[in-house]
This record gives sequence, C-alpha cells and structure tokens, in this order.
Amino acid sequence: MASVRIREAKEGDCGDILRLIRELAEFEKLLDQVKISEEALRADGFGENPFYHCLVAEILPAPGEPLGQGIGSKIIKKVAEVALDKGCSQFRLAVLNWNQKAIDLYKALGAQDLTEAEGWHSFRFEGEAMRKLAGK
Amino acid sequence: MASVRIREAKEGDCGDILRLIRELAEFEKLLDQVKISEEALRADGFGENPFYHCLVAEILPAPGEPLGQGIGSKIIKKVAEVALDKGCSQFRLAVLNWNQKAIDLYKALGAQDLTEAEGWHSFRFEGEAMRKLAGK
Repeated sequence: MASVRIREAKEGDCGDILRLIRELAEFEKLLDQVKISEEALRADGFGENPFYHCLVAEILPAPGEPLGQGIGSKIIKKVAEVALDKGCSQFRLAVLNWNQKAIDLYKALGAQDLTEAEGWHSFRFEGEAMRKLAGK
Repeated sequence: MASVRIREAKEGDCGDILRLIRELAEFEKLLDQVKISEEALRADGFGENPFYHCLVAEILPAPGEPLGQGIGSKIIKKVAEVALDKGCSQFRLAVLNWNQKAIDLYKALGAQDLTEAEGWHSFRFEGEAMRKLAGK
C-alpha cells in the first residue's frame, strides 16, 4: 500500500488545503459556501492564537498499489492522539446524512451520531443576519 | 426591565460558569456528561492560546420587573459583534430538537437549522474510543 505520513500543516500548504476544501465541498454539493481565500487560510491558521489547526497526509504512491486507502482512518487516529495530548475529553466531526461512506467509517472507529442519539441540531448565523444582530 | 451588561468572562467567573453549565445540562437531561472541573475551566480558558472564550451577562434586577427577559438575545447579539470584529463569516450554535424555545429564538434572530436544511449530523468520539484510536 502507498506510504502515508501524517504531519502538522505548514503555512505553505494553504494552497493545497484550499484545493482540498473545494474538492470536498464539491462532493458535498456545497461549493457555493466556500468563500475563504488562501490568504485568509494563512492568516487564520498561522498567526498568533490561530483559529484552526490542521493535519495533512503526505502520500508516497507505491507502483501498482491502490492510492489513498485508509488515509481517513489514519488522520482520525492522529486527531485522537493530538486531542488526548491536549487534554480533550472528546472531539466531534460534522457529516452529511447522505454521506454513508463517512458515516460507516466514523461509526466503525467508535463515534456516536449525536444528532440521532440525542437530537442535536446545528444552527448557523451568517452574513446579513450577523450584521443585523451586531447593528452593523 | 432588569438592566443587563454583557462583558468578557474573567478567571474568577469560572465557579459561576460551571454552575450555569450544570444548570443547562440538567435542563437538557445530560448532566451526566458534565465532567469538567472549575480548575479545568480556569486552565482551558485563561492561559495562553485559550481553548474557549466566554461572555457573561451581569444582571441588575429592577424591583417588580421580570428577571432575565431578553438575556439570550443580548448575548447572541454580542457574539455576532465579536465574531464580525474577528473577521468570522458565520457562527454556529448546537441545540436539542425538543428545545423549542431556543429554536424559536434562534430562528427569530435569523439563524438557519443546518441539520434540517442540509442534513448535517454531529458525530462524537470520546473516552475509550479516543484512547483506542490513539493506541493509548
């Protein structure tokens, strides 16, 4: 199998990160919601008190072997490791209810669907609603 | 109406914050999920690179007036203001599907139910599942 190395993202990865964000959003049929620029990704993730942290998978393809099997599991395992090291008691992922492949993977890795089990819904305030609330 | 002042939380508020977390969790029938201590709240929110930020509402009761009307709206408006100042394009809240009072408020303030509209589910990894994933 291809060799996979999981490492912390560097500022120079932001172009590739944005490309992957767009590819995921396209799969999710939500590409119109991606408004962030590479510059904003750099500023938000690599200044003081960063807004996000990011792991990237570096893949070294093996000739004749399938590319990319097991990368999702490897990244989630690394997230669990980082979360425990930082003293977190849990971490969460958001997934679309028709993305059965992701749902199956998360459940197989031990996650619980909180929306199904407890009834949690996610509410979003954005754009005009935010500005109106803030009086701006 | 009672006078309400919204301000940033200070480390000395952590005892009251924990009390309010417990009161909310009790209302949500999820008190068994509250495992955090006041010490952890202090460490997580008031060190370098804090894990959370918190606003508190200081209420000065007015004799003969109802206490606490409109505090939720005032805090959400402040969150919108802070979010815009920090360059955020949106913010989200999680709400239980039977908490109709909160749902009505969030919708009245312009929020969209992403779980209903787009099918987002929240998945949680915790405890034993996390340790198994991390190999610990």
